[in-house]
Amino acid sequence: MSKNNDELFKNVVSHTKEYGFVFPSSEIYDGLSAVYDYGQLGSELKNNIKTYWWKSMVQLNENIVGIDSAIFMHPKIWKASGHVDGFADPMIDNKDSKKRYRADNLIEDKIARYIKDGKSEKADQLQTDMDAALAADDLPKLKELIELHEIACPVSGTRNWTDVRQFNLMFSTQMGAMAEGSDEVYLRPETAQGIFVNFLNVQKSGRMRIPFGIAQIGKAFRNEVIARQFIMRMREFEQMEMQFFVKPGTEMEWYAHWKESRLKWHLAVGTPAEKYRFHDHVKLAHYANAAVDIEFEFPFGFKEVEGIHSRTDFDLSQHEKFSGKKLQYFDTVENKNYVPYVIETSIGLDRMFLLTLCNAYEEQDLSTEEKQDSRTVLHLHPCLAPVKAAVFPLTKKDGLPEKAREIMDLLKLDFNLQYDEKDSIGKRYRRQDAIGTPVCITADHQTLEDNTVTIRHRDSMEQERVNAADLDTILGKLVSWKNLLS
Amino acid sequence: MSKNNDELFKNVVSHTKEYGFVFPSSEIYDGLSAVYDYGQLGSELKNNIKTYWWKSMVQLNENIVGIDSAIFMHPKIWKASGHVDGFADPMIDNKDSKKRYRADNLIEDKIARYIKDGKSEKADQLQTDMDAALAADDLPKLKELIELHEIACPVSGTRNWTDVRQFNLMFSTQMGAMAEGSDEVYLRPETAQGIFVNFLNVQKSGRMRIPFGIAQIGKAFRNEVIARQFIMRMREFEQMEMQFFVKPGTEMEWYAHWKESRLKWHLAVGTPAEKYRFHDHVKLAHYANAAVDIEFEFPFGFKEVEGIHSRTDFDLSQHEKFSGKKLQYFDTVENKNYVPYVIETSIGLDRMFLLTLCNAYEEQDLSTEEKQDSRTVLHLHPCLAPVKAAVFPLTKKDGLPEKAREIMDLLKLDFNLQYDEKDSIGKRYRRQDAIGTPVCITADHQTLEDNTVTIRHRDSMEQERVNAADLDTILGKLVSWKNLLS
Repeated sequence: MSKNNDELFKNVVSHTKEYGFVFPSSEIYDGLSAVYDYGQLGSELKNNIKTYWWKSMVQLNENIVGIDSAIFMHPKIWKASGHVDGFADPMIDNKDSKKRYRADNLIEDKIARYIKDGKSEKADQLQTDMDAALAADDLPKLKELIELHEIACPVSGTRNWTDVRQFNLMFSTQMGAMAEGSDEVYLRPETAQGIFVNFLNVQKSGRMRIPFGIAQIGKAFRNEVIARQFIMRMREFEQMEMQFFVKPGTEMEWYAHWKESRLKWHLAVGTPAEKYRFHDHVKLAHYANAAVDIEFEFPFGFKEVEGIHSRTDFDLSQHEKFSGKKLQYFDTVENKNYVPYVIETSIGLDRMFLLTLCNAYEEQDLSTEEKQDSRTVLHLHPCLAPVKAAVFPLTKKDGLPEKAREIMDLLKLDFNLQYDEKDSIGKRYRRQDAIGTPVCITADHQTLEDNTVTIRHRDSMEQERVNAADLDTILGKLVSWKNLLS
Repeated sequence: MSKNNDELFKNVVSHTKEYGFVFPSSEIYDGLSAVYDYGQLGSELKNNIKTYWWKSMVQLNENIVGIDSAIFMHPKIWKASGHVDGFADPMIDNKDSKKRYRADNLIEDKIARYIKDGKSEKADQLQTDMDAALAADDLPKLKELIELHEIACPVSGTRNWTDVRQFNLMFSTQMGAMAEGSDEVYLRPETAQGIFVNFLNVQKSGRMRIPFGIAQIGKAFRNEVIARQFIMRMREFEQMEMQFFVKPGTEMEWYAHWKESRLKWHLAVGTPAEKYRFHDHVKLAHYANAAVDIEFEFPFGFKEVEGIHSRTDFDLSQHEKFSGKKLQYFDTVENKNYVPYVIETSIGLDRMFLLTLCNAYEEQDLSTEEKQDSRTVLHLHPCLAPVKAAVFPLTKKDGLPEKAREIMDLLKLDFNLQYDEKDSIGKRYRRQDAIGTPVCITADHQTLEDNTVTIRHRDSMEQERVNAADLDTILGKLVSWKNLLS
């Protein structure tokens, strides 16, 4: 990350706090690591992203329905999915500092240091060796690399390491209050399994016919050892997942379809295409026969935002095996039963939120020859903007506040609005620019005479005069989901 | 609960499963006690209830904003709130069956048996004694009542009991992977504290002035010992809470305001007023100086759906004490600092969901002298109905499916629709009645000529003929939030 981008990202992060998008969790208690709260604007922006996804996936696709399954699930489900045995990170402890680290993170930091010091050959070699060790689940090899490259504990400075061990990322808790002992249950590490175990319930009660999809938005939890990059990697996060059930043998067509369709969804909000790229998985997960990440260029580099995975019949077959129940579909066209194949689209809501802010954020120089000027503006798509319009009286007297509130009352049922009468109009514009409000509406003395108001546009900063009676239609067009979904 | 109501409730529960509103969690693994999943129609209905609450609380009130705080919070927060020490149920174990029970539930069951057996005096006495023991946190007295009234374990049949002990209802888990031991954190048992600890963050970043409110919708978790009445009491549930911060001394006015305002919200969807009642708390919680429940008459009796509580400055003061940070508001009118008082409105989303279904459900006799007929219909308010309209071709040929889909395409961006071409029109009407779809739109041969369609209304079962070009406006009016919020 270049110095410039580093600084830009810091500014984005402090901007989100200053304006009420994201707060560190439990801040008055000095915070809780890798957990964040969404503030008054953040919750609106997040809701708008959810609505955009839900409308595009569920409402517009006749053959996709949504569900909302619980975070708690039967513990056997995570046996079947492979999470109990396989969902772990390679950890190593320093015996002097008593600190625990992800072995691969320690090595990655070393690679970064090699690169910084101009030792690119060493960096490449270590990267290759680490990738091979990780691919082979070779824990002793990871330890060997740490010793070979003389990696020391950042806290104690020593190289007095334990062996590398696997550490499961699932949170567990005790459910029930039985005298004979409670059951250990997990907080789901992904929402997908809630869809798989409900596959037949939804298919039958919804009379769904293949191909069809089940979509879900919900929280998931991973006991990540190291919090990185703000809300990019949190212990509690939200996913928007869709599992699309298809006839075996047709999965590659659908994989291609969803790959294209999902990228289109990302680009529709106006993000430049060059900020996105596909990253094909070379090493596939045990359940997949094809997988690709949609990556976005954050200030700290290209990172995964969404994954599209061809999961075969792995999950449903595993649940058949572990539950003893048939999870098959009777195909009336083929006149036979089969376990469907699955294409998954899985997007991190918090990452999409961060992407949206990073892409929208601009520190804009407005200086002219006469004077220096600048503003911070969020170029959010109007459909996603938390506040759709701000309504101002030009001054606090002459009945203008009353007139402005009258306009508010006409519009507030349909649009999320802010009223502001404090400070100069210029300052009020800047405050709305900073939170991404697409338009500001001002009632002035002329409004009292002819019911016209000025509309000032966020991006162009241009103003026009319109009839207040037309505001409903103007705003309606501006924030219509048709702009994104047609 | 009368036999009739008992049966009615059973029918509601099986209806919700049959049509995809609610499924038992992890059903293929024989379920997870007191946890449920929302299916394809349930998730839509739940989302609509959320939207109704959010629009009414946040969007229409200029001085109320929403947040979305995390489920994980700093563990000290639950010390400050009193949950670590006080959030517990009185439990008793039977030494023979090894089963654990809530002492008050055992006694309540005995009271019910007394009533059934016509021993109303005994029932009243036991009720009074239990209430007194609970109010005084007198655990030995509860044990004494169990022994005195010869209450036996429903499993072993014996009266071989342990002492009554307090059992904390919070779920806990280990966060982090530090070698020196992880931190125990809790799954929040209520969303309110997420609002209190963010009070200053929101007030400052949002430039809020008292009186103002912070609202939140989110999951909470309680390790309830006994699951009762379907989704009424779940271990994982969702709350819609609003904390309204006011000047000390004005709290009773605001308490009265919110009491009235919240009941109005409930009645706006058309639920009969006689189904609701207020229940004033006689014994107040340690943090409250006034509290009332809004109760709804479920088939199993009047039960709490929402609470309005005057929480004084208890929570903010406790967080000041435990965090060491000032949580005060500078009142520019009064020119002084103070810790605000708080009025809380807290509604159980799952209970509201169940209320909505119970109230909407009808098994309607449509028999005439000529023939027997009946239907099951959900009289859901159109704003809450999961599917806004169904579109049918009269038959599967003559280009009618194409015409019906053309109509779908015109409307589906704005409304959640279903397309159905299977079975007779009559059967298709019944299916839509059963899921509460307000209108069915049928394209027939006349549609091909003059672009008119029939609209059939769910409640009246009447039909009218309208121009397909007007459907957008007709549906728009039918499901407009203005119907509920004006």
